[in-house]
Formats: sequence, C-alpha cells, structure tokens
Amino acid sequence: MSKQQQQNPNQNQKQAPKTAISPTRDENFPEWYQQVVRSADMAENSETRGCMVIKPWGYGVWELIQRQLDVYFKDTGHKNAYFPLLIPVSYLEKEAAHVKGFATECAVVTHHRLEAEPQADGSVKMVPAGKLSEPYVIRPTSETIIGAAFARWVQSYRDLPLLINQWANVMRWEMRPRLFLRTAEFLWQEGHTAHETPEEAMTETRLMHGVYEKFLREHLAIPAIPGEKTEAERFPGALNTFTVEAMVQDRKAIQAGTSHFLGQNFSRASGIQFQTRDGKQEFGWTTSWGMSTRMIGTVIMAHADDDGLVLPPRIAPTHVVILPITPKEETRAAVLEAADKLAAELRQISYHGAAIEVEVDRRDLGGGVKNWEWIKKGVPLRVEIGPRDLESGNVAVTRRDQPVKAKEFLPSGEFVARAAELLYAIQQNLLARAQQFRDENTRVIETKEEFYDFFTPKNREKPEIHGGFALAHWNGTREVEEQIKNDLKVTIRCIPFGEGEAGTCPFTGMPSAQRVVWAKSY
Amino acid sequence: MSKQQQQNPNQNQKQAPKTAISPTRDENFPEWYQQVVRSADMAENSETRGCMVIKPWGYGVWELIQRQLDVYFKDTGHKNAYFPLLIPVSYLEKEAAHVKGFATECAVVTHHRLEAEPQADGSVKMVPAGKLSEPYVIRPTSETIIGAAFARWVQSYRDLPLLINQWANVMRWEMRPRLFLRTAEFLWQEGHTAHETPEEAMTETRLMHGVYEKFLREHLAIPAIPGEKTEAERFPGALNTFTVEAMVQDRKAIQAGTSHFLGQNFSRASGIQFQTRDGKQEFGWTTSWGMSTRMIGTVIMAHADDDGLVLPPRIAPTHVVILPITPKEETRAAVLEAADKLAAELRQISYHGAAIEVEVDRRDLGGGVKNWEWIKKGVPLRVEIGPRDLESGNVAVTRRDQPVKAKEFLPSGEFVARAAELLYAIQQNLLARAQQFRDENTRVIETKEEFYDFFTPKNREKPEIHGGFALAHWNGTREVEEQIKNDLKVTIRCIPFGEGEAGTCPFTGMPSAQRVVWAKSY
Repeated sequence: MSKQQQQNPNQNQKQAPKTAISPTRDENFPEWYQQVVRSADMAENSETRGCMVIKPWGYGVWELIQRQLDVYFKDTGHKNAYFPLLIPVSYLEKEAAHVKGFATECAVVTHHRLEAEPQADGSVKMVPAGKLSEPYVIRPTSETIIGAAFARWVQSYRDLPLLINQWANVMRWEMRPRLFLRTAEFLWQEGHTAHETPEEAMTETRLMHGVYEKFLREHLAIPAIPGEKTEAERFPGALNTFTVEAMVQDRKAIQAGTSHFLGQNFSRASGIQFQTRDGKQEFGWTTSWGMSTRMIGTVIMAHADDDGLVLPPRIAPTHVVILPITPKEETRAAVLEAADKLAAELRQISYHGAAIEVEVDRRDLGGGVKNWEWIKKGVPLRVEIGPRDLESGNVAVTRRDQPVKAKEFLPSGEFVARAAELLYAIQQNLLARAQQFRDENTRVIETKEEFYDFFTPKNREKPEIHGGFALAHWNGTREVEEQIKNDLKVTIRCIPFGEGEAGTCPFTGMPSAQRVVWAKSY
Repeated sequence: MSKQQQQNPNQNQKQAPKTAISPTRDENFPEWYQQVVRSADMAENSETRGCMVIKPWGYGVWELIQRQLDVYFKDTGHKNAYFPLLIPVSYLEKEAAHVKGFATECAVVTHHRLEAEPQADGSVKMVPAGKLSEPYVIRPTSETIIGAAFARWVQSYRDLPLLINQWANVMRWEMRPRLFLRTAEFLWQEGHTAHETPEEAMTETRLMHGVYEKFLREHLAIPAIPGEKTEAERFPGALNTFTVEAMVQDRKAIQAGTSHFLGQNFSRASGIQFQTRDGKQEFGWTTSWGMSTRMIGTVIMAHADDDGLVLPPRIAPTHVVILPITPKEETRAAVLEAADKLAAELRQISYHGAAIEVEVDRRDLGGGVKNWEWIKKGVPLRVEIGPRDLESGNVAVTRRDQPVKAKEFLPSGEFVARAAELLYAIQQNLLARAQQFRDENTRVIETKEEFYDFFTPKNREKPEIHGGFALAHWNGTREVEEQIKNDLKVTIRCIPFGEGEAGTCPFTGMPSAQRVVWAKSY
C-alpha cells in the first residue's frame, strides 16, 4: 500500500487525481514506467548497486509466472535441480565466446571471510580476508557449472536426453539498471538439456521456444514475434538463438525469452561425452533456454496505462478486490458482512483450475483513495458495495481494462456467476489490444529512406508513429546490422519463421532471402 | 538412476545385494549417510568448495517441503518478497553481535568484472578487475538488508505488522561441508517481521516456532522437541531463539528450524522507526525465522534404513512406483498395458488434496535391479505386476517402511481403493517409529557420573545406548555449558516448554529451575 495515501485518510474520490500516473506514457515513457512500478508497489531500488527489492505485489506476480511456466516445463519432461551459485573462473574460461560475452559483468568473489581492522581514527572496520586461491564469479548463467555436472552424469546414450531446469538468481553487473528490465541481480529459470543427436537438440530448442511464445500469448497476453537471432545477436557460445520479441507501448522491442541450440560447444568445453549406440565416444548436443523477472517489466510496459498497472488476470495475485463503502456507522457492519459474503461466494468460483483470489479492503480509508490504490495495482476487477446496494442487491463492477468510471451495476448473484467469464474476457481483451497496437506499429518498409524516416522521432508533443517494428529486407551481413545500429540504435530483433519471401536489401541493393524484424529495443 | 545399475542390465534380484547400503548405520553412520544420499541420487558435491548440486530427486523433495511450508506461511498472513543477494559490509557491521557471528564465514565480492591478463607462459588468464569501493558479502542471512527495506516501508503504527518471507539461497563458508546438513551454499526460507509491541513480536516468534514443530511432525514425521535456546546458543543478535530439535538415528540432535525474537536490536541498527498511536517515535520489534535444505538431511538421518532412503509419503516426489515384470516377449505388451491402467487409476486418487504421484518404470532392466533402485530412492509403495498377475488380477505391494521381501498380494482394485490409506499409514508409522526411537534414547539423568557415562561410547561392535537426549538439571550458567561442551562435545539443545520442575544441578549442586535437553549435535 502506498504510504502517501495512508497518510491522507480523508482524501476522497473528488480530490484524487484524474490521471493516477504523472507523467503519462506520451509525456515521458521511462519516467511513467518508474512511476507505475512505484505506485503499484511492485519493486524498488536497494542499497546494493543495481539490485532491486521485489516487493510482495511484484513477487506475487513472479510466483504465478513461476508456477505456470513450471507446469509447462514438467509437462515437457523436465525436472528441476539446483547448481552452485559460484562458478570457478577457470570454468567460465573453457568456452571462449562465453567468457568474452560475460567477463565485463561478473561479480567476483575473492575472499571467504571478514576480519576486523583497526582504523587510524580508532574505529574498527571489517575487511576482506582469507583470500581464495582461485576466485569465483557469481553465476551470470550456468552453462559451464551445469556442464560439469552433466559430464559426470552422462556416460552412455542411455543417459540421454537429460532434461533439467533450474530456478535461480543470477548476476550480471549493470551500469544502467532499470527495475525488472535490467538489474544486476535477477531471478530466472534456466533450462539445460543434453541430447544424443543434433536433430533432437534442435527439436528441444524449438519446443521450448514454442512454450515461451505460448506462455507470453496465453498467460501474459503478449503477442510476441517468434524467430531466430542473427549471428551478431546470439547468446555467447550458441550456434542458434531463438527469441520471442514483444512490442511494448513506446514501440520498442523487448527480448522476452530465448532458447539456444549450443551444438557441441559447451559439451566439448565441459567434457560431456557419451558412448553411442555403436560403441563410439561422442560429445553431447546441448541446449539452454531462459526467462526472467524481465517478464514483469515487459508486462508492465505492454499493458499498463496512464492510470497505472494493468495485470493480465492469469498473473494477478488478486483477481477481485471488494471495496466496502461505509459512509455511516449504522450501516457499516451490514456492508462489511455483505462484502465478506460476496468474497466467500467468489472464492468458490474456479478460474483456470484454481479459486478466484479475492481481497476485501476493510481499511478505514476514503473510498476514492482505496479505489485508486487498486487501480494502480492493476487488479482486474474492482467491486464497490455500499448501503444502497444492500437494498438493491446490486454491486458496482469496474474492469481494469476499461475506463476508471465505467462502472457496471449488476445483481450480486449475476456478478458471481459471471466473474470467471469477465476475467477471461479481460485477458482476451488485453491480448487483442496488444495485438492491435503491434499491428498498427509494424510497417513493411521497402526503401532506406523510409526506414530511416520510420525510426526518427518527429513531434514530441503529439507523437506520430515514429518507429515500432519495421519489416525490411536484409542482405544477411553483419556490416549492415552495424551500420543501422550506429545510425539509428536499431537492431534486427529476429528473423521470423515461416516461408520468407525473397527480395532486395534496401541498404545495399543486394539480394535478401526474407524480411527481418528491425526495432529499437530494451 | 544409478549408473552402476544401468551398466548391469542383466543383474537379477538374486544377485542384488541383500543390504543395499554398505556400510550399515551401525558400522559407520557418517559413511552410511553419504551412501544413502548417493544411492538415492539426491545430491552430490560440486567443484565449488563446499557447495552441492541438488539432483532432481533431492530437489523434488525440496519443492514439496517448500510448497507445503509456504501454505502455512500464507495462512498465517505472510507474503513472499525478494531482497538483494549482496549485502554491503557496512550493513553487516551495524549490529555488533551479528557481524561477529558471521564474519568468519562470509564470501566476499570485491570486484565487478574479469579482465584478460597475459601470463608468463604466453597463455591468457582471466583475473578480477573493477575493484569495488565497498565490498559486498553474499548474504549469510538477511536481517540487515531486509531491515534497511523495512526502515523505508515503516513510518507509522498503521504500517505494522509487516509480515514478510523470502525463499532464497544463502552462503556461509564451511570448512567441513556435508551434503544437505552443512554446505557453504544452501536454500532456505527466512521470515522477517516487524511489530508494534514486544508482546506481538513474541507471539509471532512463538507462532512460527509452532508452525515448524507441526511441519516436522505432520509432514516430515519427525517428533522434534520444541524449546528455547540458552543465551550461548542464540542467533547472533537475538534476544531469544526458539528451536525444534530432532533426534536422528545416531542419537545426535539436529536443530531443524529456529525462530528468533530480535527485540529492537536490528530495528535500532537499521532505523526501523514508527510513529506510535500516541504520536511518539519508537523502534519496531522484529523477528526472524528459518528452515533450510538441512531439513532434507534431517529426514534422511531420521528415517533411512540399511536399504537406503525412506521418504515420508507427504514429501515423496513419487508415491507409488509400478514395476512391470516382463520376462517373456509375448506377455510384455499386456503387462505394460495393465501397469499403465493401474497408474491411471491411482492418479485419480487424492492424497492430501492432490493426485497420487505414480511412475511406471518401463526400462528394460532386470526386475531386481529396478526394485532395488526404488528401494534406495525411498518411494513409499512399490507395486510389481507380472504375467501371472494378469490372470489372478492381483498385484504385489511392498511398503517401504516394511522389510524388502514383505510383499502383500492384493486384488488390483482393492489396492487402488486402499492406496491413500496405505500412504497415510506409512506416514503415521514413520512418525511412531521415530517417536519410539527418541523415547528409547532419551534418559532422565540425575548425577554427573551417569551423565558422563551416558555420553561416552562403550562398545563399537554392538553399540549400547551410549547417548541420545539427556534430561538433566542445569544451574543456568554458561560455565557449566562450556565445561560439558569441552569434556563431551555435548550442548544444551533446548530448554523445553512446559512447567519445568525445579531440582538440583548435578554438575554444581546449585538449584535448577527445570531440566534441559542435552545432546551431541550436528
């Protein structure tokens, strides 16, 4: 709950700001984002450089993401395990591209205790002591340490496939952190698998890529574009990286999940060798794939509005908040009782196989204050119930995907009967809205001029479509990618799947196998 | 699955060892423990000093512990959140007893990147670079960093109580690690709460202590003794520490969970201050409480036998394993079909509100090999089904809490109908067995001589009761505790609750308020 509001218990709805978030998305998108996170009480910066505190509301969303993804992982035959946080530097060094990719962002553990050291001013300070003979890094990702375990576990083709997932924290030192989207420490899952053949490993890589696309669409209401990364944008050490690219409301792309075909690079580095069916020794074919708390930032940027957070119902820790309106002491008990009764009825209703989560906000605060607090938290359904409603038997229902004042008065029983349907409808609407936004801001582009124009902002006051996703041809070279990146900060987000139509690269006039997706990105 | 067994697919039941674990508990308890962990495929040591890899079977147990404890935490009003892994050293220094307690076991992060450094031999080595102005420690526990967050969140009595839990990894550098029981990195939950009054904080401390006791008893089938720690054994910085002390099969104690009343020590250190109801400023009253992957080691040491792991059904990732016996090719398909049908029927049965977890072991290995593998993994119920059973309609059921050969032949339908009941019975039996063992190895002791005798091993060949829990009086001084610890490596595990009967300290002849529990411990 927001402190500012708690300290103004007499503030009423009229005094509450018409627009909860200042600035608006159009005025200042990055600052709007920070304000949405803050006012929804999702997370905050901590004293540890680049590390966030994930507050209960934000962590509640993560728990739901975790639980739902975990079901998909288990349904596809994976088991969870846990590997050490600390990786010997020599392990990281085993795969050349890998260590190069992560060296600049590694937190390094060099000592294993603290010792009191008297200072010149007479005080005592704790300083690092017990220097390690070999330093460790805090895992930025776990291919190397998990590879070492796989090398112990795999000896024969009979031990394959090995299908493992880990839920863990990882650390990549960030110079310009941003809550959820880019933090030094973040939470994620990392799948790691080993296979007998490259075909099987590729099937796995694509399978999990498909799980991510489906999860984004059906659970987070985000229509991400699935495709393959260009060589320049691959995971360090991978032969292929598949990605799902989401568009958020400033029209930038967010890489929302990646699945890597690692070939034999990491199995060579770690010594994952097995006896084949015909008695030979071969290196295993491995994959890895991950999704992180970055997902939460993506959801916020995709769905929140100028009033605050908008949560897709599937990942909302609370589906329905009941706001009892108790202006007079004599009706207070009856209103609260009706609210509790309604809550109990709603909790009997199943939504996606579990009970609807309901909260009754009994706090002694003005109705407007409470209402705005839950708007900003993005709860899918808000229900007001007051003394007059006791007589009429109605409740006032507002969907978070509709305007703040768009109340619908429904008989209480009808609302209960329709609650799950409303949640499904909101989820569906958020997806449709995001799809429409993406379509409106995706342009097929033929010429270099049009391309440069598309990515150059025009009018800050009333922004036109000054970017988004451009579908343009590309000659397949890294030179063009670098030129565009330098000129416009635009990269190829992915080479989308499907039968690409051949054409001409607008930058070079050279032939192009298919259009690729270009965008600015987080 | 054990590799050794996979490589001997023709090994049959007769050749399988009569006793799966060598050595036995009596022969060498510490080595027996390692072998149980290894042969159940729960965990293994890693290349990172003192850190383990938790393998899928071990992690599966942890997931169940986590899920079940989490329900208790949420039912008592707590919400999960997440705080930074790295703690600035200056934070740790804020509470004097706290930093003293943890300084010798802190992993210290001093640099934030790696840099290539050419070596004399022409090779290149990655070395720490980017020295931090202030080092961080990897959290050994999070009172200080969570305290800093609480200080931001709490301003008024209206913000209290604050009831937070974190699921996380922590690190305490261990010189003599032992899988699950004592590892440098371990997984745990740490509850952290802040309250308006000392009474409320004490109520919370005791409430969570009660949750731990109940969880151990009802979920892990361990009858732990609840009580208070002596001052010498308290958490560094706490005013009181409550503990649940489990007895394992070498008669030693394991501290299985602790709940701390922190008074105002940490709120003073972190500045958790609030405006009271009468407008004054006061420091909050805080608590913390934790349980860790150590629980898994406790379960193993409490219940495993000379054949391997024995899992209480509530925390078994698989409740029933079905072993199809397929000696002849012509009956193979029919047997497998019957096994799958039985599995499908069992999965319709509810056990503690969820479906019974069933695995059909279809691998092409000898029945004896497979049977022993599942014995060693501690699966509660093993069911054999072979060609003759197809005619009779019977299945052969073995409970893991009964001898390996104690098969019961039951009509398949009757087994399905009784499966949940059998699981409840096994859970109950494990608790009863552990309770009986504890009772048999707990002695009321009156004299110093008897006490010293009790804790001195007699005969290694046929061990008598040479220890366990001693209930003896104590004069309340640290001197006696230290003397006994030096002489016998025995400590006071807890001062049990309940109306203690006064008496005389056998070591000093001084008055004693009540008997306390003495034991050797992990």
